[in-house]
Amino acid sequence: MLSFECDYNLGAHPKILEALVKTNMEACPGYGNDPYTARAKEKIRAACKREDADVRFLVGGTQTNRIVIDSMLQKYEGVISATTGHISAHEAGAIEASGHKVLTVPQYDGKIKACDVEKLVSNFYAKPTYEHEVFPGMVYISHPTEYGTLYTLKELREISALCRKLSLPLFLDGARLGYGLMSLDTDVTLADIAELCDVFYVGGTKVGALCGEAVVFTHNNAPKHFFSIVKQNGALLAKGRLLGVQFDTLFTDGLYFEISKNAIERAEDLKKAFADKGYRFFKNSPTNQQFIILEDAKIKELSPLVRFEIWERVDEDHCAVRFATSWATTKEDIDALYRII
Amino acid sequence: MLSFECDYNLGAHPKILEALVKTNMEACPGYGNDPYTARAKEKIRAACKREDADVRFLVGGTQTNRIVIDSMLQKYEGVISATTGHISAHEAGAIEASGHKVLTVPQYDGKIKACDVEKLVSNFYAKPTYEHEVFPGMVYISHPTEYGTLYTLKELREISALCRKLSLPLFLDGARLGYGLMSLDTDVTLADIAELCDVFYVGGTKVGALCGEAVVFTHNNAPKHFFSIVKQNGALLAKGRLLGVQFDTLFTDGLYFEISKNAIERAEDLKKAFADKGYRFFKNSPTNQQFIILEDAKIKELSPLVRFEIWERVDEDHCAVRFATSWATTKEDIDALYRII
Amino acid sequence: MLSFECDYNLGAHPKILEALVKTNMEACPGYGNDPYTARAKEKIRAACKREDADVRFLVGGTQTNRIVIDSMLQKYEGVISATTGHISAHEAGAIEASGHKVLTVPQYDGKIKACDVEKLVSNFYAKPTYEHEVFPGMVYISHPTEYGTLYTLKELREISALCRKLSLPLFLDGARLGYGLMSLDTDVTLADIAELCDVFYVGGTKVGALCGEAVVFTHNNAPKHFFSIVKQNGALLAKGRLLGVQFDTLFTDGLYFEISKNAIERAEDLKKAFADKGYRFFKNSPTNQQFIILEDAKIKELSPLVRFEIWERVDEDHCAVRFATSWATTKEDIDALYRII
Amino acid sequence: MLSFECDYNLGAHPKILEALVKTNMEACPGYGNDPYTARAKEKIRAACKREDADVRFLVGGTQTNRIVIDSMLQKYEGVISATTGHISAHEAGAIEASGHKVLTVPQYDGKIKACDVEKLVSNFYAKPTYEHEVFPGMVYISHPTEYGTLYTLKELREISALCRKLSLPLFLDGARLGYGLMSLDTDVTLADIAELCDVFYVGGTKVGALCGEAVVFTHNNAPKHFFSIVKQNGALLAKGRLLGVQFDTLFTDGLYFEISKNAIERAEDLKKAFADKGYRFFKNSPTNQQFIILEDAKIKELSPLVRFEIWERVDEDHCAVRFATSWATTKEDIDALYRII
Repeated sequence: MLSFECDYNLGAHPKILEALVKTNMEACPGYGNDPYTARAKEKIRAACKREDADVRFLVGGTQTNRIVIDSMLQKYEGVISATTGHISAHEAGAIEASGHKVLTVPQYDGKIKACDVEKLVSNFYAKPTYEHEVFPGMVYISHPTEYGTLYTLKELREISALCRKLSLPLFLDGARLGYGLMSLDTDVTLADIAELCDVFYVGGTKVGALCGEAVVFTHNNAPKHFFSIVKQNGALLAKGRLLGVQFDTLFTDGLYFEISKNAIERAEDLKKAFADKGYRFFKNSPTNQQFIILEDAKIKELSPLVRFEIWERVDEDHCAVRFATSWATTKEDIDALYRII
Repeated sequence: MLSFECDYNLGAHPKILEALVKTNMEACPGYGNDPYTARAKEKIRAACKREDADVRFLVGGTQTNRIVIDSMLQKYEGVISATTGHISAHEAGAIEASGHKVLTVPQYDGKIKACDVEKLVSNFYAKPTYEHEVFPGMVYISHPTEYGTLYTLKELREISALCRKLSLPLFLDGARLGYGLMSLDTDVTLADIAELCDVFYVGGTKVGALCGEAVVFTHNNAPKHFFSIVKQNGALLAKGRLLGVQFDTLFTDGLYFEISKNAIERAEDLKKAFADKGYRFFKNSPTNQQFIILEDAKIKELSPLVRFEIWERVDEDHCAVRFATSWATTKEDIDALYRII
Repeated sequence: MLSFECDYNLGAHPKILEALVKTNMEACPGYGNDPYTARAKEKIRAACKREDADVRFLVGGTQTNRIVIDSMLQKYEGVISATTGHISAHEAGAIEASGHKVLTVPQYDGKIKACDVEKLVSNFYAKPTYEHEVFPGMVYISHPTEYGTLYTLKELREISALCRKLSLPLFLDGARLGYGLMSLDTDVTLADIAELCDVFYVGGTKVGALCGEAVVFTHNNAPKHFFSIVKQNGALLAKGRLLGVQFDTLFTDGLYFEISKNAIERAEDLKKAFADKGYRFFKNSPTNQQFIILEDAKIKELSPLVRFEIWERVDEDHCAVRFATSWATTKEDIDALYRII
Repeated sequence: MLSFECDYNLGAHPKILEALVKTNMEACPGYGNDPYTARAKEKIRAACKREDADVRFLVGGTQTNRIVIDSMLQKYEGVISATTGHISAHEAGAIEASGHKVLTVPQYDGKIKACDVEKLVSNFYAKPTYEHEVFPGMVYISHPTEYGTLYTLKELREISALCRKLSLPLFLDGARLGYGLMSLDTDVTLADIAELCDVFYVGGTKVGALCGEAVVFTHNNAPKHFFSIVKQNGALLAKGRLLGVQFDTLFTDGLYFEISKNAIERAEDLKKAFADKGYRFFKNSPTNQQFIILEDAKIKELSPLVRFEIWERVDEDHCAVRFATSWATTKEDIDALYRII
């Protein structure tokens, strides 16, 4: 059966497993004090073109969002997010469980606009009783978004400039960052992100790793004793090497970018395949997640042949569905898909 | 350099890596819904001789302690632990960060006594103002303890019987459980633990896995929607297979017990080596952690040759140090150690 | 200067002060174990026509909302509220600080509709991945609402029936309950509320007390050890008599209802005064809060003569403003207001 | 029946009730923005001889301890306290519920020693793995202590000097501060406390108020947006005047000190009465709480005649009991007590 249901359905890129095997019997200090973690940090700093960046490794996306947000907010602050932001809708209340409200602004294909953030903040401070409400304390964006869309450099600069004006840290959720960076339709580089954001993460779990996200604090703004905060949240790996070796591999010889590029190329093939067969698209996505509108009968017909995810109902007879490519999707997979759709 | 500083300094047992490689390109559902996780659960239930046990996989020890304790306690309850319990002293306040006090009882070589728990609880309820204090809500023990010691079956039964009498769930931290079960000096089996405890975990991180702890709820007492609680705590792995494959391997053909046994045999060799050379022991440990008293000069002399951990100062000139064996320690390692001490 | 800015700008009803003076030198047990608290509970139970109700006293509204909601929800649950609900917008994130998300539904003049709650809940469970989101765990309504509006008995019955069908506790915020019960335009009685809700509170702070809210758990559903939860939240008064004496007074000879009725009568007078002078109303409110639309110039003109609250901007030249009457508003106050508007 | 069971069994000092009655019908802004609160702050600053002090009013002691400690600690920090400190033993886990561990040091008649704090902190940083534990972040002392004892100026200076050396804020719980300041056996003044501590509170609940504690941040170190933190914790009074009027009264013409002095004088009389009759003392207390050792038979004999609190069992036949005087205790009360003991 063909498998396009998500980008985390396989194990890891084979080079990662090779590296794990190769380094397996070397005794290393625990808790991230191993040489592989050090090398991975160095390589990520270099890829970001920021020698002053502080890189930390965590295990998964929700964990990263929760810990980064909680560690950068004051108790009386909330985080601004699109209504469709992962932290707003998909994390079982992890942000609220750490004590903070998610303050929502409208989404446009998953993205937020600087003007909406500005309005939220100016409305807040315009109220005589603002001290009775939740202070806006941070801006969260995802890139690619939950709909696979991307900010343009201009949009990102506007949001970043606003955040600096308002002294709000800008946090970019890069769970699928590789797919965004290698999109054919982006003018945003990793160095741009490192320059414009205060903290972001380079997603591993959805881009070829078994697990792992590399958090990058960009402007000497890592929270004090972040290590202990991570430990307190139960997020510190004893064998930190598991993350170090994986990211060291991903950032050696551009592997992270190369495998992300494969996903993008296959997504473009997939897009052509559906377009060619006359399907309609729910969103115009330039990354590895493609959203197609399918008739219910067609969904029933395809389900035994290929895995994909039902996204949302569009009308009485149609649903939007998601097909995701990944680092591992092959041309043969797309050809096989083309034959059955 | 010889390496006895801990039992998590290497990668994983080779069979685990083999299994990860072998299953790598199979598409599996995420979040623990893969067939390997299902098989691992089945095998752990069988090893526990409890078909009704509910097995869940988490990533690390502090994470497991925090989530299990918080999910089983009411807001007004605390957890009873030895003063030396891992949750009391070594987890950066993870239990308190989740809202609960650790109520301490005296430790005897790392173990607690049922009578001290009984005294704490009866003293609590004897106070006319007990509603102004923290209710004892659960008992936490570690087996092996932080000093490598083990409860006897009789001791465990006493604690368990008391807990049932007092309606306090009994939670056993088995971060090093394998080493306890395979000790030459224990009469406690895995089935005993599953019978006597309400929840416990089978440690993977310190017994040959890259990461992972298998939590076992034994008597239909898994908290409702534990899955969502795990997610909310940022502890849900997207690629749950990483844990499933590892525990499936560890519980196939008794690998978990076999490699634990190796650690125990090497610990016995190590004990003999030190005894033979006339060293004094700080604790009499029947498991893989051995605590030796070394003169400061000797520590200085050995440090360039072998890694071990300074445990605590004993007197002006001596420290207790810890040498840990593991699933990977060889007879050759012990021989080499013997030559240098 | 005339004072219509809110219903908590004066001290307490004189009979409350009299009772405090009269009982002042009687030695009473602390923490709510005094005879006045016992009598107040008894009288409130009688007024609710529910002998099985469990009545507890807290100090203020946000405190009550936070503690009641947190004590009745599971960790993985959130509370459903109108977007304009006090807990959603006006409590500095108190609900989120206790770990829970506020799940919003649309508001209609401050009220929610059963059908919207039903839709939220059915949409939630319809998602295959609902365990990754926040479970709806409770319904919060305010009566009167933040706009002074009231549920009809039919609406309240619909919401209550739905909540029971869905096993969601229904919580009614009665910070201004007296003004709702004595409205000329309501068919809802205190006994109806006690029958239809699982928990609600009878507001004291805004209805003649110095401070204090009487929480009523109606169907044997008070959380276990609620006393200790209150203490843990820092909400337990040492001199619980301060609340007991006040509510004992308010529920003696119907004082609570009598003074609420005065506020309603004065609000009707005020409504007539503004209507008579040709002003437009922003909301049609049947309770003590009246929302009028004023030109900016008029606001400027009135501000030195009478206190009122700017509610929200309506258009370029107009704002909605709030005039609140209370237990203490006199006919003379209204006459004076009439002369200046 | 005579009543010596505690210092919060009556209402308020009559002058406080008079002031509440007198100001009752003045319309005042809410939330502490009234003129009485402003005056009370000014008078407390003057009494502290610190014009730069930031004074805030809260309702009760546990609430104050929880909010002050949580707002001044980082997430990874705990608070150092005597094992007998109120926050450690008597507040239902309020500190832990806000996320922080209480780090205990030994108590000597309820007091801590600077050297023990120094040892705890130096031991902490001496551990190579200190980042895995809870950082000491603040020092909490009570004055008078839970045993009625007092720090000498020398002791307080030592603790303060150490705290400054270690950059740990020093927090003094003054729930019974008046009784400490007016003790015949103290050399510590309010100005000393304001100089030596970073934050402390002047207790009202136990010194003649209906409720209320005045928190004093002494060196421009009030947490940012403390108002919103108070609101979020449900501790903000709508009618802040209730606290303002009470503290304005207490700090007018030295009432706070005068009524505290009465308690001290009566405590001295009480001490003499017991000594005269040959009773033994459990602690030598220079404040309003006196701890006497009574035979069980005597306790039984006295119980119908006078209220007092059983403190703790001393031996098989004896208990320590507490007799507390207060602002309201009269010479006649002591004479009556003398006759029955």
